[in-house]
Amino acid sequence: MTAAAARPAPSADAPVCVLGLGLIGGSLLRVLHDAGRSAFGYNRSAETVSAATSDGYRASTDLVATLRQASADEAIVVLATPVTTIDDLLPSIAEHAANCLLTDVISVKQAVAESVTRLAPGVRYVGGHPMAGTSRSGWAATDPELFRDAMWMVTTEDHTDPDDWLAISTLARTAGAFVVPAAAGAHDRAVAAISHLPHLTAAATAAVGAGESDLALRLAAGSFRDGTRVAGTAPALQRAMLEANGIALLNVLSETIDRLIAARDELREKGSVEIVVDDGHRARSAYEAIAGAGPAPITGVAIGQDGWAQELRRQAHQARVWLG
Amino acid sequence: MTAAAARPAPSADAPVCVLGLGLIGGSLLRVLHDAGRSAFGYNRSAETVSAATSDGYRASTDLVATLRQASADEAIVVLATPVTTIDDLLPSIAEHAANCLLTDVISVKQAVAESVTRLAPGVRYVGGHPMAGTSRSGWAATDPELFRDAMWMVTTEDHTDPDDWLAISTLARTAGAFVVPAAAGAHDRAVAAISHLPHLTAAATAAVGAGESDLALRLAAGSFRDGTRVAGTAPALQRAMLEANGIALLNVLSETIDRLIAARDELREKGSVEIVVDDGHRARSAYEAIAGAGPAPITGVAIGQDGWAQELRRQAHQARVWLG
Repeated sequence: MTAAAARPAPSADAPVCVLGLGLIGGSLLRVLHDAGRSAFGYNRSAETVSAATSDGYRASTDLVATLRQASADEAIVVLATPVTTIDDLLPSIAEHAANCLLTDVISVKQAVAESVTRLAPGVRYVGGHPMAGTSRSGWAATDPELFRDAMWMVTTEDHTDPDDWLAISTLARTAGAFVVPAAAGAHDRAVAAISHLPHLTAAATAAVGAGESDLALRLAAGSFRDGTRVAGTAPALQRAMLEANGIALLNVLSETIDRLIAARDELREKGSVEIVVDDGHRARSAYEAIAGAGPAPITGVAIGQDGWAQELRRQAHQARVWLG
Repeated sequence: MTAAAARPAPSADAPVCVLGLGLIGGSLLRVLHDAGRSAFGYNRSAETVSAATSDGYRASTDLVATLRQASADEAIVVLATPVTTIDDLLPSIAEHAANCLLTDVISVKQAVAESVTRLAPGVRYVGGHPMAGTSRSGWAATDPELFRDAMWMVTTEDHTDPDDWLAISTLARTAGAFVVPAAAGAHDRAVAAISHLPHLTAAATAAVGAGESDLALRLAAGSFRDGTRVAGTAPALQRAMLEANGIALLNVLSETIDRLIAARDELREKGSVEIVVDDGHRARSAYEAIAGAGPAPITGVAIGQDGWAQELRRQAHQARVWLG
């Protein structure tokens, strides 16, 4: 039991302090502010802060002052900077805002949880990951509607404090998202497969196409355009995201290579692509069934009751979402 | 010199007979008819013909009668059935409409040209391939705007008859497309890279995602949705298209596997995805530059002048298009 655990959980309308005002953090600041919630942000770039301020939002380039304000307000602090920067920020959070509940919007959860434990050990933390984004970045790309009907994963471990979990999940709901409860490890394996792997297959596909000829790029239509879209994301952002989830990504990348080698063997030996095409079509249909049906709600769980976290995870594994 | 070569080329407003009224053929029938050109079609399914007829188009389930009409009208005949069916249709074309100029809209060009040479040796033929489509199929999916601003590859060999080439290229322009001249082999290599390969990488990516968990599919967002879209195309259509271009597809599939294996090695040994991400980003940027700039026109070539085909191909390799 740490000292922090004894502190009261933030209320459902606690102020929110967003560190990092890029696509995700900036969009979050905007939607919370627009929803009438007290929200303010920090960004190291004066240009970004100036853009946010002139759009009517509270923002500062002064990290310490921002964290002291968060502490005074008992705000929820949201880490929304690239994963490569959090080890620099966490000691400041521990120093200036240790009483705040901390969450994040980073696409990998085990690595962030380990950093928090190591660098801000007294700080209460519940991880988060909104499944939203575009290949654009920066304040100019922010959109208060970015999270509308998106899936927002909230880390749900057996030891997660139920009041803290509710505070973060309510934040996600205020942003317009559905809450998907998961353990950090299960989350990291899932996003390796459906978010990080597609970056690598898109990159390889794009490189092969461009390596063929300009004629090929001239002929490229929908399948190339859509299939390589995420390769257009800023390389530094892609690298930070993918490399932070290296072990899970290695596993799904290896499986992908195995499937493509099997496809090559089938094509070379039998002139057929039956297995890979059928498997892919079945998988895509399963995805469309889940994405198209709209989210079925998690039911019959009171947050904090015995086994609540386990039950939330069990229902989430059936593709259900928490609606509060 | 065959007897057919002595026949006059069709005029720019020659009637058009479309064999196969699926997404591509049906959309072509519609756009030509709507543009005021005489156009009629054949489909083996009474349901499709009935749908086309009740939408106000001329269509029949009687192949021989349709081809005899084409012959009497000196129509351009367009093969728009799956590649797997053309060996059954070509003898009928040779028998009933040998005087007609033949083209096709099939996604592979060498295999079709070989079939034509073998099964309809007296028939003039200039291949075509509109780069347009969706994952939907059938008459209900047809759209006269399908080819608007799309790239339409027209086979351009040293031995291609310039009048026949002009007739087919004018047809593509009437449908709203830009004409991309290419030799059959170069076309097949190009579409293997930018159209057929993306089906295999999408299929493998979808299968790995769906194999992870329903939680993964629930969390799937833009990168998975866009990156696996073409895996949703009807498997029989995908197989027909990909297997007809097997050799070119094998080459680009092998290169893709090599790139992903190199990415796995880099990730495993250095924890980095720098090379694959940078290569992919550079390739995607090259694609966006070409796709985004709008088509630069091929200039300074009179169709039929000495070396016209070679000059068209040379300019097309710089991503230029023929606008007539």
